[in-house]
Amino acid sequence: MKKALAEFVGTLTLVLFGCGAAVLAGGEVGQLGIAFAFGLAIVAMAYGIGPVSGCHVNPAVSFGAFIAGRMPLNEMLVYWAAQIAGAIAGAGLLLLIASGTDGYSLASDGLGQNGWGAGYLGEYTLVAALVFEFVMTCLFVLVILGVTGAGNSAFAGLAIGLTLVVIHIVGIQVTGVSVNPARSIGPALFAGGTAIAQLWLFIAAPLAGAALAGVLFRAKLLSQD
Amino acid sequence: MKKALAEFVGTLTLVLFGCGAAVLAGGEVGQLGIAFAFGLAIVAMAYGIGPVSGCHVNPAVSFGAFIAGRMPLNEMLVYWAAQIAGAIAGAGLLLLIASGTDGYSLASDGLGQNGWGAGYLGEYTLVAALVFEFVMTCLFVLVILGVTGAGNSAFAGLAIGLTLVVIHIVGIQVTGVSVNPARSIGPALFAGGTAIAQLWLFIAAPLAGAALAGVLFRAKLLSQD
Amino acid sequence: MKKALAEFVGTLTLVLFGCGAAVLAGGEVGQLGIAFAFGLAIVAMAYGIGPVSGCHVNPAVSFGAFIAGRMPLNEMLVYWAAQIAGAIAGAGLLLLIASGTDGYSLASDGLGQNGWGAGYLGEYTLVAALVFEFVMTCLFVLVILGVTGAGNSAFAGLAIGLTLVVIHIVGIQVTGVSVNPARSIGPALFAGGTAIAQLWLFIAAPLAGAALAGVLFRAKLLSQD
Amino acid sequence: MKKALAEFVGTLTLVLFGCGAAVLAGGEVGQLGIAFAFGLAIVAMAYGIGPVSGCHVNPAVSFGAFIAGRMPLNEMLVYWAAQIAGAIAGAGLLLLIASGTDGYSLASDGLGQNGWGAGYLGEYTLVAALVFEFVMTCLFVLVILGVTGAGNSAFAGLAIGLTLVVIHIVGIQVTGVSVNPARSIGPALFAGGTAIAQLWLFIAAPLAGAALAGVLFRAKLLSQD
Repeated sequence: MKKALAEFVGTLTLVLFGCGAAVLAGGEVGQLGIAFAFGLAIVAMAYGIGPVSGCHVNPAVSFGAFIAGRMPLNEMLVYWAAQIAGAIAGAGLLLLIASGTDGYSLASDGLGQNGWGAGYLGEYTLVAALVFEFVMTCLFVLVILGVTGAGNSAFAGLAIGLTLVVIHIVGIQVTGVSVNPARSIGPALFAGGTAIAQLWLFIAAPLAGAALAGVLFRAKLLSQD
Repeated sequence: MKKALAEFVGTLTLVLFGCGAAVLAGGEVGQLGIAFAFGLAIVAMAYGIGPVSGCHVNPAVSFGAFIAGRMPLNEMLVYWAAQIAGAIAGAGLLLLIASGTDGYSLASDGLGQNGWGAGYLGEYTLVAALVFEFVMTCLFVLVILGVTGAGNSAFAGLAIGLTLVVIHIVGIQVTGVSVNPARSIGPALFAGGTAIAQLWLFIAAPLAGAALAGVLFRAKLLSQD
Repeated sequence: MKKALAEFVGTLTLVLFGCGAAVLAGGEVGQLGIAFAFGLAIVAMAYGIGPVSGCHVNPAVSFGAFIAGRMPLNEMLVYWAAQIAGAIAGAGLLLLIASGTDGYSLASDGLGQNGWGAGYLGEYTLVAALVFEFVMTCLFVLVILGVTGAGNSAFAGLAIGLTLVVIHIVGIQVTGVSVNPARSIGPALFAGGTAIAQLWLFIAAPLAGAALAGVLFRAKLLSQD
Repeated sequence: MKKALAEFVGTLTLVLFGCGAAVLAGGEVGQLGIAFAFGLAIVAMAYGIGPVSGCHVNPAVSFGAFIAGRMPLNEMLVYWAAQIAGAIAGAGLLLLIASGTDGYSLASDGLGQNGWGAGYLGEYTLVAALVFEFVMTCLFVLVILGVTGAGNSAFAGLAIGLTLVVIHIVGIQVTGVSVNPARSIGPALFAGGTAIAQLWLFIAAPLAGAALAGVLFRAKLLSQD
């Protein structure tokens, strides 16, 4: 299962780099630095493991590819398992490193988990969080399906990674930006509490957004052919 | 009308990402972050919808292509309509999300609209705003016509997006940077007041700058052949 | 003289974007933003006018190409004239825009001119400035000659632009970073005073550094073949 | 020994640019700026000297390539010598420039050396530093082996450089980020004291991480074929 190993490593890296920037370096690099960390993690993995598995590293991306008719169901389920396992491993590894300084406490500093409402960054409402995650995942998966379907695959990793940078620039204040159920599940399992209680949104909204993008491509409304 | 849908989605995304960075995240990511948001939105869309419509997402770009003899008039008018509709939809979507936090008020925080004069960012004069928008749109369209005419199209999206990043780094203080009538119209319709009163400049100056670039290419003064 | 016009426009743009970021936006985007502005100006022009003239937009680059045996003397002289004229035009255009706000004064805010010593940024010595400009221009021209000689020209513009970004990140505190006599001459003519008195270093050191890079390539010590 | 000269120049540049950003500009550009300086130095050299030597500029990268069966032992040893010599030269050159301002003192400002524990940035423990350097070098070398093995070499330099950017965004607080024994040796020789005493970790952990990556590729667990 070479592809599963690649998706495991890739999603581990995405969480370790992206959430790692927030937890270990957020005070120094700011939200712009965190945004670049998430996006460049995708660039790294797209060229590193992309040749093996396509570098989905995101259950919503695999779901969009499935809906668009580009991936069989059973392969999607293998990808999902590897992605979630990788995200949990990445979050655990991050916790191990973060715990290596007295200045860090899981309870007060968290692990880069997503959220909304009172006490979470810009304190946006549930509706705003839902709309944001649905629309952003739809646009993200549209870019992925568009660029990988155009036979322009050498650029795909860079374009997709930079798209994730801009989505994070815009939305860290709103939800911390998920657009990826695995990225939300990993840190939430360790952070517990509110992060677990709010996890449903970061599974449902990205999957729904990805489904819409997949349908638009399946119906050939936004594809080249 | 697959191309019109692509231009609609692309311009919606440009406004949602670019103005979204200003409105939702400006205090965190600064003008450098906003500049990257506008430019990387173009990178995202160039690879996502570019294969369908060429990703103009800007009436001035379509006008420059028309003047340069690369686009028929009737297709340009369809693009214009789709771009303006997309920009309005993007601004509306942004307002919906932004309104999801108590800290936001349309009257005081705006929607990323362009402007000049007393009370607007660096408080530049009308003449400075006019010169800036004319020159910057001319240079922007020169880059677009140059890179897309050189048969180097795989790089075009990245080069054009990074050009928009640098134009925003330079000029957010001056006008908020339009170089794109649709990007100005969308937020202005919701912001009203001064933004509507000053809208003429962000339509006229970009179109004039794009026309000059188009003429330079039509006269083969800056094209490769 | 299509090539001369391209070099004129390209160098105008480099000064307008790079020095423009310093003068119009420096307080907002910081030295990191200024560094990206200079480098992305090169990316913009490399893909915009590069197909016409090769986008030197820098007398030191043309000199390095001449020393390396890749450009005839008379063409280099035409490039030099166009580059210097473009830099002066870019600085003049920037002054016109900058003067459009009460907060700006040429005497106190300058025009992004290079310098060293008491009162100039990090207040480095003449020797440090000389070493910095010599070494950085040599490395910059090595990258240019290496990437354009390897038949990998589609990437050249991006690689060269990003190299200029990092050189600016490192050295704005030292000299404001020239590595380009034209970029120094343009703003100095308007700023006058110390900028004119120190101009010799920003002509001599970049040309010497470029010459060393050219010799290393002519001697085939760092070229692929 | 054209390849050795290329590795010497490349590693000199990496240290001069990366550590130079920290020492000369850190107060202005922050850790995000330093992160870009290290990564873009790799982009510069990958396209500048890459055509000659492959641009390892890092003993751990050469070791990973050796373990993966892509480089003979004797060539690796030549690369190591050239890389270490280049890093020392780069650190010396940086010290020469940095000493050109009264505000700098080697004892208090250092030379961008790596470290951990009391008094070093985020004050992480030895274990955290060890885990961080081991995991990050393993992932870094995985990306390098993946992208260079996929016949996609034109993108390799950009992807590898951007990977180094994100690793630095995440980890400057932890160890200053080595993932490269040469980059640690150069500044440590001049800084002395703790930097020398802690040097073993920045040799051992990167080499061990690179070895794991090499083994994964040799066993064809993460390679395309």
